[in-house]
Amino acid sequence: MSSITVPPPKCLQKTFVAPRRHMFGPGPSNVPPRILAAGAEPIIGHMHPEMLEIMSDIKSGIQYAFQTQNNMTIAVSGTGHTAMECAIFNAVEPGEGVLTAVNGIWGERAAEMAERIGCHWALAKHKPVLFFLTHGESSTGVVHPLDGIGDICHKHNCLFLVDCVASMGGAPLHMDKQGIDILYSGSQKVLNAPPGTAPISFSERACQKVFNRKTKPVSFFLDMTWLANYWGCDGKPARIYHHTAPVSAFYSLRESLAILAEQGLENSWQRHKEVAEYFHEGLENMGLKLFVKDKNARLPTVTTIVAPPGYDWKEITSYIMKNHNLEISGGLGPSVGQVLRVGLMGGNSSKASVDMVLEALRDALRYCHKSKV
Amino acid sequence: MSSITVPPPKCLQKTFVAPRRHMFGPGPSNVPPRILAAGAEPIIGHMHPEMLEIMSDIKSGIQYAFQTQNNMTIAVSGTGHTAMECAIFNAVEPGEGVLTAVNGIWGERAAEMAERIGCHWALAKHKPVLFFLTHGESSTGVVHPLDGIGDICHKHNCLFLVDCVASMGGAPLHMDKQGIDILYSGSQKVLNAPPGTAPISFSERACQKVFNRKTKPVSFFLDMTWLANYWGCDGKPARIYHHTAPVSAFYSLRESLAILAEQGLENSWQRHKEVAEYFHEGLENMGLKLFVKDKNARLPTVTTIVAPPGYDWKEITSYIMKNHNLEISGGLGPSVGQVLRVGLMGGNSSKASVDMVLEALRDALRYCHKSKV
Repeated sequence: MSSITVPPPKCLQKTFVAPRRHMFGPGPSNVPPRILAAGAEPIIGHMHPEMLEIMSDIKSGIQYAFQTQNNMTIAVSGTGHTAMECAIFNAVEPGEGVLTAVNGIWGERAAEMAERIGCHWALAKHKPVLFFLTHGESSTGVVHPLDGIGDICHKHNCLFLVDCVASMGGAPLHMDKQGIDILYSGSQKVLNAPPGTAPISFSERACQKVFNRKTKPVSFFLDMTWLANYWGCDGKPARIYHHTAPVSAFYSLRESLAILAEQGLENSWQRHKEVAEYFHEGLENMGLKLFVKDKNARLPTVTTIVAPPGYDWKEITSYIMKNHNLEISGGLGPSVGQVLRVGLMGGNSSKASVDMVLEALRDALRYCHKSKV
Repeated sequence: MSSITVPPPKCLQKTFVAPRRHMFGPGPSNVPPRILAAGAEPIIGHMHPEMLEIMSDIKSGIQYAFQTQNNMTIAVSGTGHTAMECAIFNAVEPGEGVLTAVNGIWGERAAEMAERIGCHWALAKHKPVLFFLTHGESSTGVVHPLDGIGDICHKHNCLFLVDCVASMGGAPLHMDKQGIDILYSGSQKVLNAPPGTAPISFSERACQKVFNRKTKPVSFFLDMTWLANYWGCDGKPARIYHHTAPVSAFYSLRESLAILAEQGLENSWQRHKEVAEYFHEGLENMGLKLFVKDKNARLPTVTTIVAPPGYDWKEITSYIMKNHNLEISGGLGPSVGQVLRVGLMGGNSSKASVDMVLEALRDALRYCHKSKV
């Protein structure tokens, strides 16, 4: 039984060097050297005092980015989808109603997640206990207004859950003032950290429901009772081992939040707005059309451009990747085939980046085959 | 609505530098500079061709480490616990029976996970569809024999699920020859990569069950139908966007598998065995007792030492951390208060490391207060 039957694979003999690319798609965005260096610091234990301090710093950074005083604020050890499941798994129980605003792919996925754990789609006659809305819909390029919705939800004893993966740091957002009960984001957009960690926060109202369930959430890994303890949010003196957190990814996340705090949230919102407007003007000057007509509904982080008529959009994105070493992408979910998507987030949100994208698009429209479609 | 109410947190102004420590606890273990450097390569897209190639390399590396030809071999974008939930969520449906060998904390947790999704504990009269066993029980320091169990499971039409988080690469394991149907591990033990990714593999028999379910798994994020497509294991030509993989963590994981392939799996097994024996001999020469009496049942990666009578074990681990900059830990779950645990895994598995631990223990036993307990 001791000898091996599967030999060591030859493909692993090659040294991997990542190509240097302008990551101007809807994410992940480029990670600046300072954040990459933080992530390459030596490993410490997931429960060492220094790690608990990093987690405390991350909590403060998220509270700032979300504009919330919520004590129950943590980073999930996973991607945006993990945070989405964390929110839904903890907030609702089987048999309860969930109302989902489907304004793009994320609403569809939230509805599917709720369905998988035995919740039903709430209609007018079923009172929903949770309302899901995507703030920055990266599939359509729409930023959805949030003011007033929390109040309506609360009047109907419903929690207000918001996805800000693509908007946080790039568009104004005030968790507490806007009455958002659960808010989550991702690390790989405006924060410019590698994908793999996801900020999430629960209001006092959300905690009342989450911590008074009749049933346990389906996931042990995402159970907020455990996570609240690990993050020191439950007021208990002892931290109990729950899971081994992605130590390096927490280093990067902390650094990315430190950069946001240095730059200032309002400055970041303002810069994303100005750069987006400069970009949109440039696109229209080139004769391209924006997918979102209403200027106020345009997401400042991810721009959707109507796929240029007569062109194969795939040829355009491939041409730009090949000749400009620059990623822009096609549509996603409901917008597939209809749009090109350009994300300029965090450090990538600059007029210099805009000029590069416009030049690449101009070039692609000149050299791609108009006859193909 | 535009002005902020939560100011930027001062704690993020401090530059974080990780302390350099000998990570000789049960994990995470030290990450060598080569793996840290791989993880600090610039970000590319989660569906770029180079990324898909990295994922293909990772798949080959896991097949080697697991000694399997299974096509359905991937890395989960999460920790060992995520892989554990991935296995259970996909393999069983509500109402089915799961049998769990509880030889430490991991069996307990697997049972809890199955219970949360509506499975019942299988007893003699309920036929289980899944049998869970931990190969390397890091909480007790036991390596459990695997030969023959797969056959018994298959005779009873039951899948054999094995946790090798703490044993893979450190103790002989042959997924195919031993008839294991689902096997998962973690990145932060013998592989010496940062925590946050988790190898998992499904046999043909497991796939028959996983892909012929009546109900969808509770988790969209961990649904193997989606993951199989993202990893190119389902034979379909198009890869559909599922989630944004932790790109940097996959770089590190690939590098760690490349190192294992370079060193050779059998050499790694042999080295862990020899180093563990050298360590155990040293401990006994010091008058310390091993928690696992049967030599053949001792896990070569994580050693459990009977907590020295008359001492407070917490004082010992704190003393060693403070004065030797070295992590060893106490018990976990059923072994809390009873043992000290020392993990020497991957690059940390060397006689030099053993000598450091023995010296630290000798020192602690001399200077810690024997009267305390």
